[in-house]
Amino acid sequence: MYSHLIDLNDYSVEQWNEIIKLARDIKSNPHIYEGACTGKIMGTLFYEPSTRTQMSFQSAMLRLGGGIIGFDNPQTSSIAKGENLKDTTKTVSGYSDIMVMRHHLEGAAKAAALTADCPVVNAGDGGHLHPTQTLTDLLTLTAEKRLTDLNIGVCGDLKNGRTVHSLVRALSKYEGNKFTFISTKALGLPEYIRKELIEGGAECADVSSIEEALLDLDVLYMTRIQKERFASDEEYERQKDVFVLNARKLKAAKKDLAVLHPLPRVDEITHEVDGDPRALYFKQANYGMYARMALILIILNYDGFKPKPLFEGESGGLKCANKRCIVNNEKGLKQSFVGGSDVLVCEYCEERVI
Amino acid sequence: MYSHLIDLNDYSVEQWNEIIKLARDIKSNPHIYEGACTGKIMGTLFYEPSTRTQMSFQSAMLRLGGGIIGFDNPQTSSIAKGENLKDTTKTVSGYSDIMVMRHHLEGAAKAAALTADCPVVNAGDGGHLHPTQTLTDLLTLTAEKRLTDLNIGVCGDLKNGRTVHSLVRALSKYEGNKFTFISTKALGLPEYIRKELIEGGAECADVSSIEEALLDLDVLYMTRIQKERFASDEEYERQKDVFVLNARKLKAAKKDLAVLHPLPRVDEITHEVDGDPRALYFKQANYGMYARMALILIILNYDGFKPKPLFEGESGGLKCANKRCIVNNEKGLKQSFVGGSDVLVCEYCEERVI
Amino acid sequence: MYSHLIDLNDYSVEQWNEIIKLARDIKSNPHIYEGACTGKIMGTLFYEPSTRTQMSFQSAMLRLGGGIIGFDNPQTSSIAKGENLKDTTKTVSGYSDIMVMRHHLEGAAKAAALTADCPVVNAGDGGHLHPTQTLTDLLTLTAEKRLTDLNIGVCGDLKNGRTVHSLVRALSKYEGNKFTFISTKALGLPEYIRKELIEGGAECADVSSIEEALLDLDVLYMTRIQKERFASDEEYERQKDVFVLNARKLKAAKKDLAVLHPLPRVDEITHEVDGDPRALYFKQANYGMYARMALILIILNYDGFKPKPLFEGESGGLKCANKRCIVNNEKGLKQSFVGGSDVLVCEYCEERVI
Repeated sequence: MYSHLIDLNDYSVEQWNEIIKLARDIKSNPHIYEGACTGKIMGTLFYEPSTRTQMSFQSAMLRLGGGIIGFDNPQTSSIAKGENLKDTTKTVSGYSDIMVMRHHLEGAAKAAALTADCPVVNAGDGGHLHPTQTLTDLLTLTAEKRLTDLNIGVCGDLKNGRTVHSLVRALSKYEGNKFTFISTKALGLPEYIRKELIEGGAECADVSSIEEALLDLDVLYMTRIQKERFASDEEYERQKDVFVLNARKLKAAKKDLAVLHPLPRVDEITHEVDGDPRALYFKQANYGMYARMALILIILNYDGFKPKPLFEGESGGLKCANKRCIVNNEKGLKQSFVGGSDVLVCEYCEERVI
Repeated sequence: MYSHLIDLNDYSVEQWNEIIKLARDIKSNPHIYEGACTGKIMGTLFYEPSTRTQMSFQSAMLRLGGGIIGFDNPQTSSIAKGENLKDTTKTVSGYSDIMVMRHHLEGAAKAAALTADCPVVNAGDGGHLHPTQTLTDLLTLTAEKRLTDLNIGVCGDLKNGRTVHSLVRALSKYEGNKFTFISTKALGLPEYIRKELIEGGAECADVSSIEEALLDLDVLYMTRIQKERFASDEEYERQKDVFVLNARKLKAAKKDLAVLHPLPRVDEITHEVDGDPRALYFKQANYGMYARMALILIILNYDGFKPKPLFEGESGGLKCANKRCIVNNEKGLKQSFVGGSDVLVCEYCEERVI
Repeated sequence: MYSHLIDLNDYSVEQWNEIIKLARDIKSNPHIYEGACTGKIMGTLFYEPSTRTQMSFQSAMLRLGGGIIGFDNPQTSSIAKGENLKDTTKTVSGYSDIMVMRHHLEGAAKAAALTADCPVVNAGDGGHLHPTQTLTDLLTLTAEKRLTDLNIGVCGDLKNGRTVHSLVRALSKYEGNKFTFISTKALGLPEYIRKELIEGGAECADVSSIEEALLDLDVLYMTRIQKERFASDEEYERQKDVFVLNARKLKAAKKDLAVLHPLPRVDEITHEVDGDPRALYFKQANYGMYARMALILIILNYDGFKPKPLFEGESGGLKCANKRCIVNNEKGLKQSFVGGSDVLVCEYCEERVI
């Protein structure tokens, strides 16, 4: 069994903290870690282009002295056309010491991990999970701010933005954090996540504009609302400005506010904000490289860093209803569900069947 | 003169065995070879995408400590558009210590070798030659089985599959091998190759389904028959199953059968077979990396490993009739033929003119 | 402030000579420089494919022991689509120690340098500047010929070929050089450049065919005239041959003529010329790697190698009229002009406004 990273929740908060601590040490003492992965190879299988994530992983591996193979161009890559996911990933895993994978189908990284000959890191499986983004966000807050007792505003499409779900769930595991959700009614946080946060002890509030929330925030996590998510063009025109951060609004915020954004941005933060010392999103992108360096090092070098075992469970005749789930798109995979009598989810994409 | 690898037959069987022996030593003692190519650069010119072959070469070079430049994307690469093959390959060979090349035209690697400033390795020139696949197959059999006294079944399109031609010719140079060809009448092995095998002392048999052959085989080499190679759709529907290997058929085979496949597969081996210990095709893909490591090392480091000299011969007014031959597609190349009075072939693509 | 290389004229002739001297030493003693950039990363952002330039930079960095990240495929790269230039370049500069950039818009490299967290090298910004080509040309002449007292013929489209402008301006700063311009009337050298050359003390002559000039030349710098630059198809058919160099014409030239070409060529030099010892264009391509090695080393390692400071000047209400200028295509950039009361040019693309 290898130490795959498919879902951050396969590891404990203590293990997250271990990665974050190592990442900070690497940033402070980069020369110590040069050559730590000499002779190792990272396969980067980007079935869906994501140049920023890929370059972040590549620079991480190169700074550790390792090498990189892979593809980023599904249209012209022979390997991405027609061939079964397993045949490609199993073959490349035989050339690699660690394999980083991005795919448009949900559960694809987990499916690859079932047969891979090296550890697999999920660099995004459709809209499902993106655990290294969450590690990046946690590292940025640790280094630039703190992880506890924060009043955290989260702005954007909170219904469909699953990286936001992952982040707020992760932050709710640290003490004393409060959340303020800034969105439209229709694009608010799903009820089951809100329930989870509240049960974990986090306060939650909702507002419908950045200005309503900004005064008290310690952290403002900005994301994009896609135009097509609004109910109508009129609705979009009427509402879009209330979800844009500009220099004028920022005047009302705390002097030590941390403005984060996973990038790329479109128009949701105006360019005049970039010069404000509270704008940390470029720093955040840079922390992403250190988070990935720490992750690669831990996976390749530490014994005992094992995730929950992968398994292909029984289906009991059920079938995952998610068309974008890998189990419905890849020959040779079996329907598999995990959970209990009240909630049962697909093992690959976590879509609920009960 | 550089030690190019254009055609495996430019080298002796003893030299093949030397590569195989080194490859096995690298697999057993990888740390000895780390850094053996430090400071060296491999240019990888893939005019036709072949991600698996390319990644195999790249991981081989990286594991030896070398670096990689190149392209894999003819559509968007400026170098692959319009420019003469020679101008590109000569320039890149000036940046490289070894150059690996794949091209859709037959004879392209040989044409590049005429002017290159570094050794050239043929990673596939159209349907013509693919010598590192054959090296991979020989290494796999050496390590997992043996190279002599084998009953070898070869299944698929044996008429057009030139990598199969290369493999059976190579295996016929080792003692005591028997071949069983599994194909349709129309897609059987060409007569001139069968003649060559028999003259070399190898027994040959023909059957029209996997089941007829499987009982006695030591090796089953599977390849694909493309749907469009069958005489008609009805013919395809009627015949396709007899050329598919599945778990049921495999029950009748020897306990130590070796099932090989050059990959990628489509449907000719069912996924349930993957778990059978006799299914060696993923191991085979992995051996491909070690075969290429040995080849790179030998070409870059060993003196005296010289192939037959390249030359541009005289045409005597003849013209190669193969439209997919580089000599008919590249300015500045001269028609050139080799052989004797009874057989004369194009030096680039080996198409017979007499 | 970092040592960017945006425009060769930001540095002194003494500094050019320093780069050339180092490049020659690297070529003579490559092993001394192996590992000189170990642990360093070069980001290569090719918004416009230019495989030759990119591979030249990549092999340069790898031979120095450094690593490479980047993209070369704007069509399939997520980073090149939609996102603001600054967001991409700032992020990648955080992963990199040096960033090499090619872009179809003029001034793009300068715009990137304004916010980058590492030195930026301009590998071509539209038709504007391509300083590492000029360094390559100067190195080639230094090593194979000399930089002074040359009779230099320049053939091709001298009106639109801005790399030719850059080269003749550079060569005019060395003593005793004469220029002979070989082009059509309509495609001759712009008057303001000719004026600059003459004021600098260089003799200039014009001829309308290679043959008229060849007898007395020490250097013939060939470039392409695109068919569509001719006034009409008839004009093209009538004139094209006089701008083609072939073996017959070359017979009349000096025995130690140096024929250069930035490559790729189309038909302007026939392939029979390649075997002539005076044909130096493949050597020239190879010198390009050494020029870039020297440049990378100097930028990464030498203190005190600073260019003229970048600044965003005042616009005084003026607006750059060049649609292909970055200032008219990138949000957040301000119109900025430099010069005096008689001449005022856009800081990004150098288009004159007064």
